[in-house]
Amino acid sequence: MDQHKSFGSDNHAGAHPAVVGALAQANTADAPGYGADPWTGRAVSTLRAAFGARGGVYFVFTGTAANILGLSLLLRPYEGVICAESAHVNVDECGAPERILGSKLLTVPTSDGKLTPGLIGTRLHGRGDEHRAQPRVVTISQVTELGTCYSLEELKTLGEFCRAEGLRLYVDGARLSNAATHLGCSLADLAACADVLSFGGTKNGAVGAEAVVVMAEELAADAPFLRKQQGQLASKMRYLAAQFEALLDGDLWRRNAAAANAMAHRLADGISGVPGVELWQPVESNAVFASLNPEHIERLLRDWQFYVWDPAANVVRWMTAFDTTEADVDAFVADIRRTAGE
Amino acid sequence: MDQHKSFGSDNHAGAHPAVVGALAQANTADAPGYGADPWTGRAVSTLRAAFGARGGVYFVFTGTAANILGLSLLLRPYEGVICAESAHVNVDECGAPERILGSKLLTVPTSDGKLTPGLIGTRLHGRGDEHRAQPRVVTISQVTELGTCYSLEELKTLGEFCRAEGLRLYVDGARLSNAATHLGCSLADLAACADVLSFGGTKNGAVGAEAVVVMAEELAADAPFLRKQQGQLASKMRYLAAQFEALLDGDLWRRNAAAANAMAHRLADGISGVPGVELWQPVESNAVFASLNPEHIERLLRDWQFYVWDPAANVVRWMTAFDTTEADVDAFVADIRRTAGE
Amino acid sequence: MDQHKSFGSDNHAGAHPAVVGALAQANTADAPGYGADPWTGRAVSTLRAAFGARGGVYFVFTGTAANILGLSLLLRPYEGVICAESAHVNVDECGAPERILGSKLLTVPTSDGKLTPGLIGTRLHGRGDEHRAQPRVVTISQVTELGTCYSLEELKTLGEFCRAEGLRLYVDGARLSNAATHLGCSLADLAACADVLSFGGTKNGAVGAEAVVVMAEELAADAPFLRKQQGQLASKMRYLAAQFEALLDGDLWRRNAAAANAMAHRLADGISGVPGVELWQPVESNAVFASLNPEHIERLLRDWQFYVWDPAANVVRWMTAFDTTEADVDAFVADIRRTAGE
Amino acid sequence: MDQHKSFGSDNHAGAHPAVVGALAQANTADAPGYGADPWTGRAVSTLRAAFGARGGVYFVFTGTAANILGLSLLLRPYEGVICAESAHVNVDECGAPERILGSKLLTVPTSDGKLTPGLIGTRLHGRGDEHRAQPRVVTISQVTELGTCYSLEELKTLGEFCRAEGLRLYVDGARLSNAATHLGCSLADLAACADVLSFGGTKNGAVGAEAVVVMAEELAADAPFLRKQQGQLASKMRYLAAQFEALLDGDLWRRNAAAANAMAHRLADGISGVPGVELWQPVESNAVFASLNPEHIERLLRDWQFYVWDPAANVVRWMTAFDTTEADVDAFVADIRRTAGE
Repeated sequence: MDQHKSFGSDNHAGAHPAVVGALAQANTADAPGYGADPWTGRAVSTLRAAFGARGGVYFVFTGTAANILGLSLLLRPYEGVICAESAHVNVDECGAPERILGSKLLTVPTSDGKLTPGLIGTRLHGRGDEHRAQPRVVTISQVTELGTCYSLEELKTLGEFCRAEGLRLYVDGARLSNAATHLGCSLADLAACADVLSFGGTKNGAVGAEAVVVMAEELAADAPFLRKQQGQLASKMRYLAAQFEALLDGDLWRRNAAAANAMAHRLADGISGVPGVELWQPVESNAVFASLNPEHIERLLRDWQFYVWDPAANVVRWMTAFDTTEADVDAFVADIRRTAGE
Repeated sequence: MDQHKSFGSDNHAGAHPAVVGALAQANTADAPGYGADPWTGRAVSTLRAAFGARGGVYFVFTGTAANILGLSLLLRPYEGVICAESAHVNVDECGAPERILGSKLLTVPTSDGKLTPGLIGTRLHGRGDEHRAQPRVVTISQVTELGTCYSLEELKTLGEFCRAEGLRLYVDGARLSNAATHLGCSLADLAACADVLSFGGTKNGAVGAEAVVVMAEELAADAPFLRKQQGQLASKMRYLAAQFEALLDGDLWRRNAAAANAMAHRLADGISGVPGVELWQPVESNAVFASLNPEHIERLLRDWQFYVWDPAANVVRWMTAFDTTEADVDAFVADIRRTAGE
Repeated sequence: MDQHKSFGSDNHAGAHPAVVGALAQANTADAPGYGADPWTGRAVSTLRAAFGARGGVYFVFTGTAANILGLSLLLRPYEGVICAESAHVNVDECGAPERILGSKLLTVPTSDGKLTPGLIGTRLHGRGDEHRAQPRVVTISQVTELGTCYSLEELKTLGEFCRAEGLRLYVDGARLSNAATHLGCSLADLAACADVLSFGGTKNGAVGAEAVVVMAEELAADAPFLRKQQGQLASKMRYLAAQFEALLDGDLWRRNAAAANAMAHRLADGISGVPGVELWQPVESNAVFASLNPEHIERLLRDWQFYVWDPAANVVRWMTAFDTTEADVDAFVADIRRTAGE
Repeated sequence: MDQHKSFGSDNHAGAHPAVVGALAQANTADAPGYGADPWTGRAVSTLRAAFGARGGVYFVFTGTAANILGLSLLLRPYEGVICAESAHVNVDECGAPERILGSKLLTVPTSDGKLTPGLIGTRLHGRGDEHRAQPRVVTISQVTELGTCYSLEELKTLGEFCRAEGLRLYVDGARLSNAATHLGCSLADLAACADVLSFGGTKNGAVGAEAVVVMAEELAADAPFLRKQQGQLASKMRYLAAQFEALLDGDLWRRNAAAANAMAHRLADGISGVPGVELWQPVESNAVFASLNPEHIERLLRDWQFYVWDPAANVVRWMTAFDTTEADVDAFVADIRRTAGE
């Protein structure tokens, strides 16, 4: 593998040692299958309390699976999902919403990955018209795919708008930890506006585990059946639950996210003022989006791992992870500066 | 948890220590996501060789997911799947084949969970008739849900029959290890008849990992896309691959299965001749199906974990696992004998 | 075409002249599209009254479409449909329930095409178990695919059983007219037990028109959207509605069905006592199922059109239509008798 | 109904008398079901010749159904459809492509409803990337939803581009007749670029009938099954076929379309130079899109039927039909001029 720390994705990192330790500790005697084990009982209970979720918590294996399960609790067959064009459900799930849910995505272009009541409003025409897929769910990503966060005020506004319009709100929280850390708020604060959210473990130090958090009790009845039908019911559920127990223990999830976010800020600070390098989005999580000279991009890609987000605009994405170190960042910054010709 | 070893399911057991050890060892530095890591490279390569699979190997998280992915490689939208009524895809997947694949199951009653050309032939009418779902795939379970195994001769016959009839053959191998051990054959021997099979890790000492093995090259092109769309593409794939590496290392999979099978035989031998206790199916894997007095069933369920398979026929299922010990079996046998009034 | 009247299917007949006349009369000036025209208003209103349907009436083009739309009003994604193995939805719709609805059919073998509480009860296990598709809808055909009818008493019993068990009841009424005629009852009598039914026009003298009748108001909200999504919303709806207006005018539907039923009885009477010819099902509609010598079947097929229903049992199906004449039947009977060697 | 001719939609018109006459003439004796009748044989044969279609012709009931069937012949489960944002499949089919096909639509904003290689190229990224729905089919509407036509040169360019890019081309031809008339070309000329097209009867004088035309033989094998599964297989197919026979007889389809197109031009000419009334799109079929003073729109809507296409831009759509007369147009023009204050 690369000798340098990857800035390609927060899923290039391994798992936090405490998570792997928890897996090993869970590997004791027999346990009932399919979630009737004590690890699941404890982890679900802690998460319900942390989110203020009356509906329940359902573990699944991947972010795509979490989004599909979460959305499937909220939609009738002819209802559509309003989302940003850049949303993971639209761009990065190989058509799973259309194929597995059978639902139309009603996409909206955005400048920063964030929806607003005004943007949502552009997709609300045709309600009651049988020729149109009926807008029913709004989905936002918190953190967005562009690394930005909704403020608590923005979330409140969205939540109220959705309730007033008879819309439901689903939050793709693959990086919810990073948002809670950036905003300095609780998970319950982030959840207050939502009907259902996902809470990602994988990008924040888990081996591979996501939680679907159902806020309202009446939305949860279908969840066990849909999770099973969607191939996401773990027989040895304790190994998913143990990962969350480790992340919840002493708020490891927050410490991991804080570490990653801090390194993104360190990276952004480090390149500040470098001629020809410009931030494309504000840094509000563990992602740095910047534009730079295409030849410099090419030069950096020889030694470093990261994605060219928008080749036309010469925008790159640099992700940090829970285990990115100051030395990793400093070495990368030094090389960026060197490449940029300072 | 129970003080006694569970005979409820082979997924009540934890993972083999070597599997957990492999997970911990895989938890090193960065690795590329989505399977482009060395663990996945090695495990896939070993499995391809072991099965003689030219098409590829695709890891997923659950048995249901493996079946859905495997079948989805073989079906057009109007084609159906011939299976035993007792098949996991028919009984235990909450309608996933119908919902996620959109495919009709053409079920056949069987006495022992096994299909034959004759039984398959009963579902082959209406070919070419646009009013009928077209039979296209035959799926068998090896080991079957009733603990029985197809012999190599039976597999060969089925494979030839399917080829002659223009049918494809999918093997649900959630317990393929137990079958290979029972038959004393290689994985390639079991795969020779098939177009696609699953190879289960979870019930044989893994934390949670299944492989979809595609035999023919031309069937594999869709697999990466369908796996992603079905929510089964692990971002940190190395942790699935490492489990298989551990199971493949020194044929741990076979030793685990051999241990479980031996304990099922020890259990069957132990109850042999007990009045009122009768084997319902031959013991050919790690399952013992027996009928006994319903009051005795009730009495045993106070202290032991197992499933009543068929309440009407007073048939129970007793499963052993890779970690079931002789002492576990002997204690259970003693209690069965005591209960049966000897 | 054949010089002889077809006994192959009631859809081999053309349309009743009054139906074609109504189409021509509807071909006047402009009319609003998609059902906002006066023909649709009148036909829906008449049908609502005839069935006592508070939910609404929705026209579609085919029997398969009617069944799919009707069932789609009653099912969540993980819920299944209990039906007779011989049901049209199971046998004759090319897997549409599985593909378009995504729903599992829970089939029950029957001797006469009819379900009973006892037979339904065999498919009610596993309720609440997330591994199982949840039984939710019972569907019966009235007339059944074997030409038999449920009595009003049987319907009442089924309706009460379903309500007590939390099941919904859908009636495939492709030949509902024939049943109402056979039982001498109203459409409302047949509908009293049901949540949703179809009312077939095509097999009873229409050009091609079926109605989905929704009994309860709360079940109808989705119907306009699902009909559109399923490709069944006619832009020039007046031409579907006009067909029903013609059939409803002076109860033409009942006169047509009575004519067809009478000819089936005449046919059954005509072959009564012929050696080697035996009725396989009682004649309760416009179908005669009989078994006879396979060589005689072959001989008759040279001159007459009908289906061999069960080649193994030498059972044939002879259908009459609204326009089958006494002379048609008598000629056929004479040939059957001649062939049977009298 | 309105005393004035509707300019709301070409489906507000009734059917051409010759079509209804053909229906009546087809209402003779028995005919085999499901398309094995002589009317279907003849109509299919004529259409195959007219389009140069080696694959086959399949009648269905609605435009949505034609699009779904046509597209379903061309897509694997993870493949997407590139279309204009304004396309009927995207806007007016209640999510049928996503729900019934399970396919993602990859939409492109356009100024005139027409795709170009450049616009298609914007949706071709991510090919081979398992995270992305794979672009596979391009669908265009000819006539577009904005009343514009692709020239033969544009079609040729699109066809070559698609072939070069490994894309398939589906043409939504709900108003293909109007395009052929506008361009003065044959149906085969319009079909040369396509893999599959629909040929609409309903908006051009039929009672309700559309044809799916499959150009290549190898694409047609699935069509009979998929049509049945999608609820579009007419049992009394002759009544669909007879409509097409009438439209094909003496090229009635072209005469009808020519009449409608001419009236759109007359309307556009009539309002030419009226202050405040501006054509929004060139008139290339039977649609006139114009912008005018919103108060004048409101005033006209009191007496005339038409749609406000874009309320924000004060754009209205005026459709003509095969039976729109010069007097109808002249009366409407006079009222528009009066309203506009001349």
